[in-house]
Amino acid sequence: MRNLLSMEHLSNEEVMQIIERAAQFEDGEMTRLEKSYNVANLFFEPSTRTKTSFEMAERKVGCTVIPFDADFSSALKGETMYDTVKTLEMIGMDAVVIRAKEDEYYNELLEGINVAVINAGDGAGQHPSQSLLDLYTIHKEFSSFEGLKVTIVGDISHSRVAKSNATALKRLGVNVRFLCPPEWAGDFEAYHSWDGLIEDSDVIMLLRIQHERHVINKSFSKESYHEQYGLTFELEAKMKKNAIIMHPAPVNRDVEIVSELVECERSRIFDQVRNGVFVRMAILETLLEGRSI
Amino acid sequence: MRNLLSMEHLSNEEVMQIIERAAQFEDGEMTRLEKSYNVANLFFEPSTRTKTSFEMAERKVGCTVIPFDADFSSALKGETMYDTVKTLEMIGMDAVVIRAKEDEYYNELLEGINVAVINAGDGAGQHPSQSLLDLYTIHKEFSSFEGLKVTIVGDISHSRVAKSNATALKRLGVNVRFLCPPEWAGDFEAYHSWDGLIEDSDVIMLLRIQHERHVINKSFSKESYHEQYGLTFELEAKMKKNAIIMHPAPVNRDVEIVSELVECERSRIFDQVRNGVFVRMAILETLLEGRSI
Amino acid sequence: MRNLLSMEHLSNEEVMQIIERAAQFEDGEMTRLEKSYNVANLFFEPSTRTKTSFEMAERKVGCTVIPFDADFSSALKGETMYDTVKTLEMIGMDAVVIRAKEDEYYNELLEGINVAVINAGDGAGQHPSQSLLDLYTIHKEFSSFEGLKVTIVGDISHSRVAKSNATALKRLGVNVRFLCPPEWAGDFEAYHSWDGLIEDSDVIMLLRIQHERHVINKSFSKESYHEQYGLTFELEAKMKKNAIIMHPAPVNRDVEIVSELVECERSRIFDQVRNGVFVRMAILETLLEGRSI
Repeated sequence: MRNLLSMEHLSNEEVMQIIERAAQFEDGEMTRLEKSYNVANLFFEPSTRTKTSFEMAERKVGCTVIPFDADFSSALKGETMYDTVKTLEMIGMDAVVIRAKEDEYYNELLEGINVAVINAGDGAGQHPSQSLLDLYTIHKEFSSFEGLKVTIVGDISHSRVAKSNATALKRLGVNVRFLCPPEWAGDFEAYHSWDGLIEDSDVIMLLRIQHERHVINKSFSKESYHEQYGLTFELEAKMKKNAIIMHPAPVNRDVEIVSELVECERSRIFDQVRNGVFVRMAILETLLEGRSI
Repeated sequence: MRNLLSMEHLSNEEVMQIIERAAQFEDGEMTRLEKSYNVANLFFEPSTRTKTSFEMAERKVGCTVIPFDADFSSALKGETMYDTVKTLEMIGMDAVVIRAKEDEYYNELLEGINVAVINAGDGAGQHPSQSLLDLYTIHKEFSSFEGLKVTIVGDISHSRVAKSNATALKRLGVNVRFLCPPEWAGDFEAYHSWDGLIEDSDVIMLLRIQHERHVINKSFSKESYHEQYGLTFELEAKMKKNAIIMHPAPVNRDVEIVSELVECERSRIFDQVRNGVFVRMAILETLLEGRSI
Repeated sequence: MRNLLSMEHLSNEEVMQIIERAAQFEDGEMTRLEKSYNVANLFFEPSTRTKTSFEMAERKVGCTVIPFDADFSSALKGETMYDTVKTLEMIGMDAVVIRAKEDEYYNELLEGINVAVINAGDGAGQHPSQSLLDLYTIHKEFSSFEGLKVTIVGDISHSRVAKSNATALKRLGVNVRFLCPPEWAGDFEAYHSWDGLIEDSDVIMLLRIQHERHVINKSFSKESYHEQYGLTFELEAKMKKNAIIMHPAPVNRDVEIVSELVECERSRIFDQVRNGVFVRMAILETLLEGRSI
């Protein structure tokens, strides 16, 4: 594994190896990479948790992190992604972590580039490190994937989390169901009501309403979304005994979920953030040491 | 002491312990914290000296500093301060340094947050690390506070420096006087002329005219401010033999003070910047090691 | 040598010493500076390669790099360059690397400042570290400068690269020729056609069309520039056997040069980026250790 671009490129075995390695990191194991690798984080869209999580993971595996101001770079002068990444390679990077607005921006990096490329989100495409931390969180909870019922709720068509997770979860034997307003289903077959979904779900995976990406329907307010698709006290009370709530965050409190439930006992929302660091350590180690996973 | 939010929370003893520890750092003592703590600096307003000073102090006490772009973060997506800081806690921070526009933004961090919070300025509220470095600078000069006369000059009502310092100085036995245009006195009792103040002050503490925060009166020009309240050669000549000039900077040269006086013999303006690093090292050590000061 | 501000301040001997030291770094030699120096990079204009290259070089010579957000600093509050740099000196910097919009902004830093100042580009003025890496690249190729023919092509009058390089190359015995549209010659005597230049040039040094700085003539399109002054397959085929192509980048592909030639055999465009790190390591070592070169 040289790059991490899309969950579609990962086999179940590769997913499980990342999960197992992340668990070792969570148990306190240290990595000692063969050398101090140089890494840069190119975030062309705002991000707190993904960027900061990578920054932390990079330091924990002993990388030197070279700062890169995406909002103040030569990309503003019209430089291509290829030229930006090739430049960073010549300066001495071993890996780059990239978030960009364009779907599959990484296609122009597949040839001629010799640094490891980690996709931290491409437009409405994929977000594989988020997906792997979600899988890690689920696996940590249930110790396997086979036969679990996961309900993904929200703006399916625009969500890279939904796409990345649906791909991987189905392949791992999970029964994935989508719940969303009809306008947001995209190519997916989706439910439009919680009826019959809330009671038997092992995981309720809420997606963020991405105000900043689009407004499907201006008459569709936050309040009406919350009323029909938000996770309320009433719904939470109907969940299975060991079922959990997930959300990639940032949460719109009282939209996707009642604010008081964000840190309730079955919520794994902040655990996901914590797990992300271990998963990204495993990703970095795998790519930088070119391990044949 | 777990957080540093406002000078009002610090006892005289705590202030003196920070001052004494900072003096040891200035004398070349090294700190060896028990472990390498992780710190992030969240500056939601522009800053050179405070942010850079913390960045330096953090490295000098051996912290790992994880970069955080406040102007490019999920706060732009409407994330609450609580959720941002909780996220950073889960990623592994031990402390966060925050500057924000909202007065007392830190109130939402008092419960549920387990990282140390250092307030680096809240709106028109407090700026305790600046205050502590001011106190350090005065103490270094006069070896005690009792009976000193300090005149604070400028936009009292909007200045967090004025508020933080007035609180602490009075409690330490200093005679604090305010000088400002009547419109800028706020709740403070203030003088409106240098007469009787310049000759017996031990410290003239100039405040910055904060163009970016407000315009009290558009007809009140920089020139007329300088004429009535600026520190001129004539005024400087009337100061006591050992009296000093202070300013939190950035200075508006030829507004608060004649440009040529910024580095005059009795100016401590750039010394304050230097002292700030030692004081912030003492703050970080105190909070991170949870010393019972 | 205390500062690096302009190629005009460097003797041929100083240039050669930097080149020789950079070559040692490229050969794998390590530097061990006497102490860990503190450095800040103040980039008031967007930059990828220069800033990132300095960031890498600083770490490779063992500096501690203190982050500085130029687009979010007190400079926004109208602070002078002198006060900003003096502040950084008091905070503990040993050197600052500065890129700024104003020509010769460094003149206000010549007195009263005790940190080393490295000019990383001043308006339409100089860019000495870029010039030194260009010289390094040429010297690496031809092992000497004497008698070489270098043709500089593009917006001569607005290019700091052209100015810095012309100064140094001529003094080193190079025959420098300029090729550009008549409007862009400025004070230089220039050719306006490739005829007679392409066949005998040892180095074709292309400059970047700087859209962001000016539009000389709105009717002068990218296409017409490419047609008359761009490096095409036809021209490349006429170049001398060992002649090389250089460009400071970022390249406007298919404007200054046909996209497919950017990584052709005789192109040194990405090598220049790689060389830049070694050259900047040599610059930092020289300035920080105050070597009498």
